[in-house]
Amino acid sequence: MKTHPDLLVLGAEQIVTCAPPGDLDRPLAGKAQGDAGVIERAAVAVADGLILAVGPADEVMRDYPPLEGHTRVIHADGRIVVPGFVDAHTHLVYAGSRHREHAMRLAGAKYLDILAAGGGILSTVRATRAASLEELTEIARRRLDLMLLHGTTAAEAKSGYGLDIDTELRQIQAAFNASSASPVQVVSTFMGAHAVPPEFRAEGAEAYIDYVCEEVLPHIAAQGIARFCDVFCEKGVFTVDQSRQVLLAGRRRGLIPKVHADELAPSGGAELAAEVEAISAEHLAAASPEGIDAMARAGVIAVLLPATMFTLMSDAYADARAMIAGGVPVALATDFNPGTSPTLSMPFVITLACLQMKMTPAEAIVAATRNAACAIGLGSTAGVLAPGRPATFAVLDVEHVDALPFYVGMNPVKQVVVRGELVVDAGALVRRM
Amino acid sequence: MKTHPDLLVLGAEQIVTCAPPGDLDRPLAGKAQGDAGVIERAAVAVADGLILAVGPADEVMRDYPPLEGHTRVIHADGRIVVPGFVDAHTHLVYAGSRHREHAMRLAGAKYLDILAAGGGILSTVRATRAASLEELTEIARRRLDLMLLHGTTAAEAKSGYGLDIDTELRQIQAAFNASSASPVQVVSTFMGAHAVPPEFRAEGAEAYIDYVCEEVLPHIAAQGIARFCDVFCEKGVFTVDQSRQVLLAGRRRGLIPKVHADELAPSGGAELAAEVEAISAEHLAAASPEGIDAMARAGVIAVLLPATMFTLMSDAYADARAMIAGGVPVALATDFNPGTSPTLSMPFVITLACLQMKMTPAEAIVAATRNAACAIGLGSTAGVLAPGRPATFAVLDVEHVDALPFYVGMNPVKQVVVRGELVVDAGALVRRM
Repeated sequence: MKTHPDLLVLGAEQIVTCAPPGDLDRPLAGKAQGDAGVIERAAVAVADGLILAVGPADEVMRDYPPLEGHTRVIHADGRIVVPGFVDAHTHLVYAGSRHREHAMRLAGAKYLDILAAGGGILSTVRATRAASLEELTEIARRRLDLMLLHGTTAAEAKSGYGLDIDTELRQIQAAFNASSASPVQVVSTFMGAHAVPPEFRAEGAEAYIDYVCEEVLPHIAAQGIARFCDVFCEKGVFTVDQSRQVLLAGRRRGLIPKVHADELAPSGGAELAAEVEAISAEHLAAASPEGIDAMARAGVIAVLLPATMFTLMSDAYADARAMIAGGVPVALATDFNPGTSPTLSMPFVITLACLQMKMTPAEAIVAATRNAACAIGLGSTAGVLAPGRPATFAVLDVEHVDALPFYVGMNPVKQVVVRGELVVDAGALVRRM
Repeated sequence: MKTHPDLLVLGAEQIVTCAPPGDLDRPLAGKAQGDAGVIERAAVAVADGLILAVGPADEVMRDYPPLEGHTRVIHADGRIVVPGFVDAHTHLVYAGSRHREHAMRLAGAKYLDILAAGGGILSTVRATRAASLEELTEIARRRLDLMLLHGTTAAEAKSGYGLDIDTELRQIQAAFNASSASPVQVVSTFMGAHAVPPEFRAEGAEAYIDYVCEEVLPHIAAQGIARFCDVFCEKGVFTVDQSRQVLLAGRRRGLIPKVHADELAPSGGAELAAEVEAISAEHLAAASPEGIDAMARAGVIAVLLPATMFTLMSDAYADARAMIAGGVPVALATDFNPGTSPTLSMPFVITLACLQMKMTPAEAIVAATRNAACAIGLGSTAGVLAPGRPATFAVLDVEHVDALPFYVGMNPVKQVVVRGELVVDAGALVRRM
């Protein structure tokens, strides 16, 4: 029996396990979300990529002492350790830049002005359609590196900048290829119903939805990479009926439903997510109380995206406190996308969750790890630190969980370990003169 | 004559020189602050730590071609290059953590509740008084590393957590020692008049100001490190008369005045800064129109600290647009401190300057480099990229100046070069599996 670890993390002021007693594969909801399973003055022992033990340092050292020449030691030096962040909602793969649009928005332009100037989502569709698989893969690979530098070790990636068969397939393939060459695990979501492409402008949304369901979905299912199907259910984009049609068609093809719901106005998206037993509803800044109730009853996870509101200079953040009070498990994500949230930083999302949505630091960390993992179907492997689970975690240069949100806009990541391998070490970064 | 550079930066999409035609040693104000001297598809040639040339890539390559085995090349790969950030207002050196206070503030506590619970500035004074020179130096050294990782290559450091002779001297010495071992250049400010310490509670602010002027200042001046003298001129802290007394006493000892002015309420601080010909007035969230006019006439630089407002969950940002319109040169800084702004990230400050204070990205970059350098007396060496100036700059993983503020909360720094030496290379950071 192996008792010597091949990796030990010592000297952590706190280890946030996100694993209080109970079933580890399910999200934490309600009051339980506030218990992040914090162990004070703790250590982690690792062997063969899995956690042997995580607990008070003296117990771990007694049971799993280091063996010279065999055990690598990471000295956390009073810092905190958290599970690798899980970014549950990203639009990882796209080409082009929308910096002109950003400048217009800073100067006060509204969305319609931006559209009139050739900006908006369709400009990204044009650039993405023009990009090769190799180009998209390289773009995604660079972004996965940036995620990793900010502590993210698993992420969802939505398609939806192709809006045709070839480009949707290419986006999903690029995410897969990039993930294969990266420590970051990527889970793909098909989101053909992200917008109506120009070639369907005359026929309209109905006809495009039929095309997505009948023409595109069979190819996506045959490709065999995507696990989820998402739709932008919002006033002015796709109606509840159109959204239901896509999600049910996806479900018949084995894709689990997700819903972009109630981002800007209450559109019945939260209610639809509950009706179709979606794994998650996302955005939810304008979700109705009835929608929140329905989600709680159906066990739908809320994926909240505060960086989008911040970037849009809006105060209309989702009501995380109402969702937690109502028993909805809350997850967090960046919404990484070229228009409304070009950030890949989960630490910043945690800052916004606390300062703007009044989540506690413990709730926010659970939302950014365990609950996010559950929202993308990784609840049985990612998001918690417990014996037998993958040794995937980040050492953050923060002295206490309660301090984490206040290092606003900094990257607190000191080290990242994925399945027992040290993949980021910021300590090696600065050269003295 | 040397024509082969020892360092070349090639492939930059844009180089932001902050050096449009004109006197490079002075801050940019008014409309001029909006011209960041951007060169498209540009290169930099460096020798012996100084810039040989910065300009369009074809011209630089023609005049300063690389020599194999001699010239190191940094491929910027479509990214942007900016002068190293200058953080013009920090409380770099302190001990202790105020995470309990942060948690209380998240839960809705007001400043008086926090004081009653033993928090606030005096808790940092207790911890700092208890720390040795070696401890404070090591703390400061770690923070300078974090600054460097976020692209900051020069910073101001205020004392003011000692409030007695020994500790004020120790704080300033620690900043000096840490800077000596770091690529980050630190300029020190004496800020004994930061708060009234407990031992003066009975005698009051007047008596403490007399002590600062008559007892502390002579020691600080004799130490010979501090270049500036600052005071917290604010309702409930020090009055305009008390502040004037400190600043004039400092000036007699050779310390250039700076003022913490009008952070929470219009307190006459901006007007005082103009009257005593301060190099800068800082915070200014509640500066009066008359104060702004007086600053413009006297050439006082406004150092704005939006991260503090963000951390305090306030919308009362300084009116940067009024200051720029009024001809006041605007600089930016983190206000790094344990209570109200524990961030060291100038990129995040730029994001807030643009999204919350409506500065343009070009204005914000000038504010975070050239104008900030002028605000801490480094206008003749730091903050611009021009021939003959130190080759101190950062490569940011951003495709265009206008995109910079939108990578919210990320650390965009790819490489940092200080006086021709590569001191941070984030590209070397991620290990593939």
